[in-house]
Amino acid sequence: MKIVGVDLGGTNIKAALVDENGEITRQKTTKTLVNEGTEMICNRIIGLIKEIALDEPVKVGIGSPGSIDRENGVIMYANNITALNGVELVRMIKESTGYDAYLENDAKAAALGERWFGSARNIDNFIVLTLGTGVGGGAYTEGHLIVGGHGYGGEIGHMIVDPSGPVCSCGSKGCLETFSSVTGMRKWVKIFQERYPDSLVFKYSGNGPVDAKAIFDAFKEGDRLATLVVRKFNWGLGIGIGSLVNIFNPDLIILSGGISRASDIFLEEVKQVAHEHTYPSLSHSYDIIISELKEKGAILGAASVALERTK
Amino acid sequence: MKIVGVDLGGTNIKAALVDENGEITRQKTTKTLVNEGTEMICNRIIGLIKEIALDEPVKVGIGSPGSIDRENGVIMYANNITALNGVELVRMIKESTGYDAYLENDAKAAALGERWFGSARNIDNFIVLTLGTGVGGGAYTEGHLIVGGHGYGGEIGHMIVDPSGPVCSCGSKGCLETFSSVTGMRKWVKIFQERYPDSLVFKYSGNGPVDAKAIFDAFKEGDRLATLVVRKFNWGLGIGIGSLVNIFNPDLIILSGGISRASDIFLEEVKQVAHEHTYPSLSHSYDIIISELKEKGAILGAASVALERTK
Repeated sequence: MKIVGVDLGGTNIKAALVDENGEITRQKTTKTLVNEGTEMICNRIIGLIKEIALDEPVKVGIGSPGSIDRENGVIMYANNITALNGVELVRMIKESTGYDAYLENDAKAAALGERWFGSARNIDNFIVLTLGTGVGGGAYTEGHLIVGGHGYGGEIGHMIVDPSGPVCSCGSKGCLETFSSVTGMRKWVKIFQERYPDSLVFKYSGNGPVDAKAIFDAFKEGDRLATLVVRKFNWGLGIGIGSLVNIFNPDLIILSGGISRASDIFLEEVKQVAHEHTYPSLSHSYDIIISELKEKGAILGAASVALERTK
Repeated sequence: MKIVGVDLGGTNIKAALVDENGEITRQKTTKTLVNEGTEMICNRIIGLIKEIALDEPVKVGIGSPGSIDRENGVIMYANNITALNGVELVRMIKESTGYDAYLENDAKAAALGERWFGSARNIDNFIVLTLGTGVGGGAYTEGHLIVGGHGYGGEIGHMIVDPSGPVCSCGSKGCLETFSSVTGMRKWVKIFQERYPDSLVFKYSGNGPVDAKAIFDAFKEGDRLATLVVRKFNWGLGIGIGSLVNIFNPDLIILSGGISRASDIFLEEVKQVAHEHTYPSLSHSYDIIISELKEKGAILGAASVALERTK
């Protein structure tokens, strides 16, 4: 049985045909165009699935941002595709295509992707952190994904790593996301910018908003503002991982998502900080690695949702 | 089938006969006398089990401090009964009594106790925090206890709630335990004591070490040092619970252990702090309560280990 993996995002919808070995044979991307409203977006999702499936018998796995009601196949709340909030996506796909579909939060799908196709293939206890605009996470323990009490829980990016840290979009303070994401790094740039008005960060960002590439490029040049921001990134991530190791005792922490690919900049220091914040008997029990799935991570994660639910 | 629950501690060993409804019919306590060495302690444990079982067919459940190898029934490391470290306790009990025995960390046993006999009887997602000399914890999610990667993991008391907090005995900084335990409160008394040499905390402690009762009694009198220490206790616990809710999305947080019985002093403020640090969509999804099992918690927890493993 092949799977159509659907990676739902605020900008693009990607879909691909994936076999049980993780081979991708057909792939298409379409714009989400969130402003066109619920029906148009749904039609594009269904159209994409049909284009990829080409009438083959398939299952459909979907990774979506936000809170998910996995039992009923509904996106509860995704702040970048609000038109889909409350839509019975899984039922709709079944009715329009005949295919069984399975919905999961994208960070948790990424964790399943590592389990089925990535570095966690033979590992029963691991945690995936997706580092991008925000921080997502999925904990897989003793052979199953933790989905939390109400089925849509588990906001690992909002664990508090330093209560004196910046205010988070969620209203709390010092969440992991306020340190180790693009959003977090922007907060720290703002905090320090008056002291470093001539920072390369601003030069490299041009007229647009500060992005991760500008910060990392400036860091490589020894830029002081970029160095401060990267230190905060590393510190928050290291403490967050330290706490997660103490709580879950995983064998592996896998970092994925866009920013993870800049690991040459941060991985060694993150390992060091995590080590310093880990319970002594656990400090040599885990490793922190970068996902090998790279840009395929989201699609393979989405496909894994269908595999995991029907295994 | 009845169970002998054994609550192993650095000072006392308690055992009781427990039925499947949590009724306790026989109970005995003996001193641990840790200095008398491995063989003597083991003999006392076995003697106590026999005295309680009186040749009835029973199973034995044991709650022990420290790190546990539950598969092999060995206490890996308990810093207050080092004489038992590495001892094959379960095998030894089986050989001496014929009874099947099951070993668990005492905080995780407390979580199982809530599940079998306490406030979590019908709840699949909850977390127990045991507040005493240190902070222990057990997370029960989607119907099973999280035991972590190597089977002896999960040190919830050592999640970091504030990295600028006091140095912990584990070597890290600002662990939950450095705020919300007797050990933690003593650290904060030390930090503030020079400013408040006349605090009632010292008067109420007499010549002994500062204890929780002295702090809580002084707090009730409006003592300034005690107030600062209780605030730190509440703040750390609230942040810790906030993070745990964000990670696990439990329906219930149950506080147990000796200090939990002073809940009139701290519960409302802890709820407030937790609420402020919880992801908005989760902030009304859980409650924080005090264990109803009180002084029976440890024994019923120990008995539950046998029930859970053979269910």
